[in-house]
Amino acid sequence: MDAIKGLLPNVRSKAPLVHFLTNYVTVNDCANITLACGGSPIMADEKSEVEQISSLCAAVVINIGTVNVRTLSAMLQAGRYANDCGIPIILDPAGAGASDFRNDAVSRLLREVNFTAIKGNISEVKFLSNGIMSTQGVDASTEDLVCEETLYDTLVFSRQLSVMTGSVIMITGPIDIVADSQRGYAIRNGHPMMARVSGTGCMSGAVAGCFLGANPSCALESMVVSTAAMGLCGELAYEKKTMLDAGVSTYRNLMIDAMDKLTEDVLAERAKIQRIF
Amino acid sequence: MDAIKGLLPNVRSKAPLVHFLTNYVTVNDCANITLACGGSPIMADEKSEVEQISSLCAAVVINIGTVNVRTLSAMLQAGRYANDCGIPIILDPAGAGASDFRNDAVSRLLREVNFTAIKGNISEVKFLSNGIMSTQGVDASTEDLVCEETLYDTLVFSRQLSVMTGSVIMITGPIDIVADSQRGYAIRNGHPMMARVSGTGCMSGAVAGCFLGANPSCALESMVVSTAAMGLCGELAYEKKTMLDAGVSTYRNLMIDAMDKLTEDVLAERAKIQRIF
Amino acid sequence: MDAIKGLLPNVRSKAPLVHFLTNYVTVNDCANITLACGGSPIMADEKSEVEQISSLCAAVVINIGTVNVRTLSAMLQAGRYANDCGIPIILDPAGAGASDFRNDAVSRLLREVNFTAIKGNISEVKFLSNGIMSTQGVDASTEDLVCEETLYDTLVFSRQLSVMTGSVIMITGPIDIVADSQRGYAIRNGHPMMARVSGTGCMSGAVAGCFLGANPSCALESMVVSTAAMGLCGELAYEKKTMLDAGVSTYRNLMIDAMDKLTEDVLAERAKIQRIF
Repeated sequence: MDAIKGLLPNVRSKAPLVHFLTNYVTVNDCANITLACGGSPIMADEKSEVEQISSLCAAVVINIGTVNVRTLSAMLQAGRYANDCGIPIILDPAGAGASDFRNDAVSRLLREVNFTAIKGNISEVKFLSNGIMSTQGVDASTEDLVCEETLYDTLVFSRQLSVMTGSVIMITGPIDIVADSQRGYAIRNGHPMMARVSGTGCMSGAVAGCFLGANPSCALESMVVSTAAMGLCGELAYEKKTMLDAGVSTYRNLMIDAMDKLTEDVLAERAKIQRIF
Repeated sequence: MDAIKGLLPNVRSKAPLVHFLTNYVTVNDCANITLACGGSPIMADEKSEVEQISSLCAAVVINIGTVNVRTLSAMLQAGRYANDCGIPIILDPAGAGASDFRNDAVSRLLREVNFTAIKGNISEVKFLSNGIMSTQGVDASTEDLVCEETLYDTLVFSRQLSVMTGSVIMITGPIDIVADSQRGYAIRNGHPMMARVSGTGCMSGAVAGCFLGANPSCALESMVVSTAAMGLCGELAYEKKTMLDAGVSTYRNLMIDAMDKLTEDVLAERAKIQRIF
Repeated sequence: MDAIKGLLPNVRSKAPLVHFLTNYVTVNDCANITLACGGSPIMADEKSEVEQISSLCAAVVINIGTVNVRTLSAMLQAGRYANDCGIPIILDPAGAGASDFRNDAVSRLLREVNFTAIKGNISEVKFLSNGIMSTQGVDASTEDLVCEETLYDTLVFSRQLSVMTGSVIMITGPIDIVADSQRGYAIRNGHPMMARVSGTGCMSGAVAGCFLGANPSCALESMVVSTAAMGLCGELAYEKKTMLDAGVSTYRNLMIDAMDKLTEDVLAERAKIQRIF
């Protein structure tokens, strides 16, 4: 996939400012991995300023992890504005399916905002498409995880959802999927321990925001490469964690450290990106 | 205390989903230690969704560390609902005694919700019982810390408070106390450095939520063992910190790492649990 | 600068309680570096309790990083109360200049509250003085960074602003500046990697709050020494980071670790404080 070349260097050279309307659980990790990746984060969710903040930014990331009535209103405002200005915008429907409020929030966001990309685990993304599913917290139900057996079906589903929404679809899991209406990819980077750290998914969205902000004309490629980059950081961190005989909290830091040190060469060498259709 | 056997393995095998309505200072630590312990965290404080979120969960943890009018309302809603459904619920009255607003918040919570367990430092818990005390921030006033001299009195006090509230009472300090109306325990695990990390108390509540969620019929035992487990992680982390010549921030991560690696065998071997009455 | 002697030991011996009304991105780092420094943090932004919380504290720190209508109101309340009681109060105008809402927030805060000290990067602080500037996120625009060439002009500007506001002015950057109407200092501690960690500036404000809380009659000296201390921790952390071959996330922890271990002797030996006027 030659199209991936240069995307990470673009993040480093352009240092895209990324506007986050996100949850208060993992917001610090999102800020720090954005910096580690080469971007610059700004968090703002006061409705009366989100338009101006978005206007300064190369990308907007909306994550509904701890959304409430006030912040939903700000998200809608920022989203519509980003659309008007042509600023790339990502939706992370964290915990979609867990409550009517969250479901309505996602529905409204999808109705009023055109997202450049939507990223979530299979439960969350499936909810978006059919509104009928079981969601346990913000983790994916294990029966649904994307693996070799379900890969093809998930890609077909992602393509359909991309046609419906106009968004690039990214589904995180043991295998990560990225697809639009024309092309579908499987990314086989990552490590199971990533699921044991709060905010891995949110950080993945942050990294995607940096890539998208720095490479706005390559939305699909940005999602593919940022997914591979995040997964690779999970692998590199696991290698170092084993060496240090450390646990999950140190592992979280090592993932961000790995993003800080990630080079285009290592990414090109170790990214496991396969085009499926 | 043979009854403690199997409680931690239950957390690991059941992976209880725990609903947190907690402060924005230490929420990330709560999420990560929940995962490290074997549970699965979900944070949600929008009033219109807290009932549905709680309904998915094995336990609810309410921590008033940065409570405001909006989140108090959500806490009351979640608490009453958890009671209706028989879901175990923990109160961490962080900073109780520091302001009339906090005091009123605690009073309302105690009046409208029956808590399975209440955990706090001696200042906070004393406030609950008499409403008259000095509280400095969210740390315990040093004159009141539970030590060998005050152990017996504190246990008597805890038993009385348990009779009043119907809750298991956990008081954190140099010696940790857990008591209900029938039984009282002193737990002598932990390390003084734990008090120098923001969120140790909150994390203790998170771990308690995991144990309670996985062992709902053993409320007292869950509080006793989770307290010993958290304290033991403080000890194990201190040993590693010394080895690494590190400071308090690394120590925080090492505590969570220790919870990740904690085994039933090490817990059984090193837990210092003494039944007093 | 003999006047700096004893300021850090005062923090350690007095353990000042510091009230934070701050952003939810870096609040945990602020809490932990406060503890590492020797202070005790309490975060509270419910309007109906901020006066009572402030009344317990030795200093108040207001940081507008994620301010909204609700929290601005609490900040004004706490600020006016701190003034009435003579409690030292610091303003960190994080992201000032980025939106009309933030600008209005800063204007109202400056109009209604007399701040003991104002700290920010050059963009933020310049905005305070002329209301006309370019701000990119919460990082300083590179063209404005304080360096040897711009040092004199920045000090003159800081002195003018101090005259206008009555506050000690601290400007963070490659060289840190602290000035009041009578005296101006350049502090040459720190490391470029500090800018790659989210919250370094916020932590600097937290440390300043601890010094000010413990040394209320030495506002200028507190700001000078706390700036040197924070910068020195950035240097010490960088040395350890290099030794460990770690990245930015570990570096964040090492900065807090360094504050935990910082002694008066090392501070006296390595602080690079120069009086300019």
